[in-house]
Amino acid sequence: MVKVVVLRYGHRVIRDYRVTSHACLVARAFGAERIIIVGKRDESVAKSMKDAVSKWGGSFAVEFTGGWRKTLQEYREKGYFIVHLTMYGLPLQREIEKIRRQRKILLIIGSQKVEGEVYRQSDLNISITLQPHSEIAALAVALDWIFNGKELSKRFGKAKIRVVPKNKGKKVVKN
Amino acid sequence: MVKVVVLRYGHRVIRDYRVTSHACLVARAFGAERIIIVGKRDESVAKSMKDAVSKWGGSFAVEFTGGWRKTLQEYREKGYFIVHLTMYGLPLQREIEKIRRQRKILLIIGSQKVEGEVYRQSDLNISITLQPHSEIAALAVALDWIFNGKELSKRFGKAKIRVVPKNKGKKVVKN
Repeated sequence: MVKVVVLRYGHRVIRDYRVTSHACLVARAFGAERIIIVGKRDESVAKSMKDAVSKWGGSFAVEFTGGWRKTLQEYREKGYFIVHLTMYGLPLQREIEKIRRQRKILLIIGSQKVEGEVYRQSDLNISITLQPHSEIAALAVALDWIFNGKELSKRFGKAKIRVVPKNKGKKVVKN
Repeated sequence: MVKVVVLRYGHRVIRDYRVTSHACLVARAFGAERIIIVGKRDESVAKSMKDAVSKWGGSFAVEFTGGWRKTLQEYREKGYFIVHLTMYGLPLQREIEKIRRQRKILLIIGSQKVEGEVYRQSDLNISITLQPHSEIAALAVALDWIFNGKELSKRFGKAKIRVVPKNKGKKVVKN
């Protein structure tokens, strides 16, 4: 199974709290191993994800980095293939086989303006539709394609609680 | 091709601007026909989507409704199959064939607490992973599965500009 680490580019403390929290939850739920957030450590994001992992299980990690260049370099040296999600890139559906052949992927999602260097430093720049939408949506769809839908059935170890699927109502049980 | 209308439940003016805007952009980019937002008319959301449609093309519409019950009733009478996205529902991957057989779908996405009646009034309650994440991600992945990836190549008529996919850099041309 391919290993995916997400790099969230351009988080701004407070202003981006909600969108970055969604990015973290999506990265975890759709099977990434960790998210690295570019920017100053944001305790509210770190804490809410720590709480989510403790409750819902798994070993998803949140990190912060002061310098995305250093992080990219580090992951490149570890053998990660770097994929940047952008509406200007090559269509996901055409490049998916190449992406699925990788063992380790660093998946970059932007927020505000992304520097040209991110495009140049990436092995692949990938678009998910050629339309403006949302980095949260792009991340979810990219992970769903990379894992070929298998992540939808992923089980998380050490969860305190879990959902029992129902057509009507809610059923949550303690483990 | 199945026709999809999105119902966004529980938008709060200002506070939810960014998340609702993402929901609108995702609904449009991934092939829905329109989005109906439950709540008071929010001019900033309406205007930014009008601008996006004028620039990027297509005929995506944004509406507001004061009462979700009335809207549900109206769409039910028009023959829409009602699917509510919730982490407590039946797994998407198991129900997808049933959903794809429909001609018209009203896809409900929540935000804050959703009333129990929404679950009961829906024909199907569907989960996309059984984990907490994001209604934006859920919407994108649901539409991608419903349209079976074909929406990724969708062309939008009357666009003023369009992206020409590239592996490095950005290319946008006028139509």
